[in-house]
Amino acid sequence: MRLTKQTNYAFRILMYCSANGGQLSRVAEIAKAYGVSEPFLFKILQPLNEGGLIETVRGRNGGIRLAQDASDITLLDVVRLTEDSFSMAECFDREDADCPLVETCKLSAALREALNAFFAVLAKHSIADLAKPNDSIGFLLGLERRKDAIVAA
Amino acid sequence: MRLTKQTNYAFRILMYCSANGGQLSRVAEIAKAYGVSEPFLFKILQPLNEGGLIETVRGRNGGIRLAQDASDITLLDVVRLTEDSFSMAECFDREDADCPLVETCKLSAALREALNAFFAVLAKHSIADLAKPNDSIGFLLGLERRKDAIVAA
Repeated sequence: MRLTKQTNYAFRILMYCSANGGQLSRVAEIAKAYGVSEPFLFKILQPLNEGGLIETVRGRNGGIRLAQDASDITLLDVVRLTEDSFSMAECFDREDADCPLVETCKLSAALREALNAFFAVLAKHSIADLAKPNDSIGFLLGLERRKDAIVAA
Repeated sequence: MRLTKQTNYAFRILMYCSANGGQLSRVAEIAKAYGVSEPFLFKILQPLNEGGLIETVRGRNGGIRLAQDASDITLLDVVRLTEDSFSMAECFDREDADCPLVETCKLSAALREALNAFFAVLAKHSIADLAKPNDSIGFLLGLERRKDAIVAA
């Protein structure tokens, strides 16, 4: 049982944007900060954009930023957009289930209860809890150095 | 995020054995009841056997049965034996992590909290909660019919 790499980088993209405050973040910068390719990040941006978590500004000075306050974006909002499936058992999708116990079995209900407990914790944590403007995360991502450079210029 | 097919059939094997009481269950019967192949079930039996959840009796009248009381085997005991990994983020395995935030990030802690909530629910439910001797599960699995046949013979 794992979360996908896409989900993990979705969290990190949103943390980067949060650490960067209302400023636009370039995908090239985010890719560099995390050591991944831009095409990989673009694929993850699509569901985040369609799901209303980020907004994209096109053009030479374009980039991405959070479309909502970081404290309003929970970890559950993210996994709902980026994970393909939370199928804990074949019988979660009843149409596919060919188990002879499908009508009476309590396994599915127990697994659903466990999954709901997992979701409830994710719903308690927001992107703002993980990264805010001017905290150490921004420094580690190179955002503070960039601001210094701007001030010095 | 999914549980593997192996885990799902591990639950079902243990439920079958529980519904069958202390009697030995043949793998061929379990495979037939669930419509899967015997080699597939044998692969799943190995970790269940090594982990002390089932015991195997060899020979012509051999089979498998629970090695513990069904009420002592929790769903958590099962997933611990059958799932390869619960890596919610790259940084769960610190040695692999090359994220610049690995030392300060609170994401990993939040995901671990969610995973622990998931585990806590699984630990509350036992195989006996899902299937007991003489309940309707046994009938659906063909166990009652088999007993009738034995009585009639």
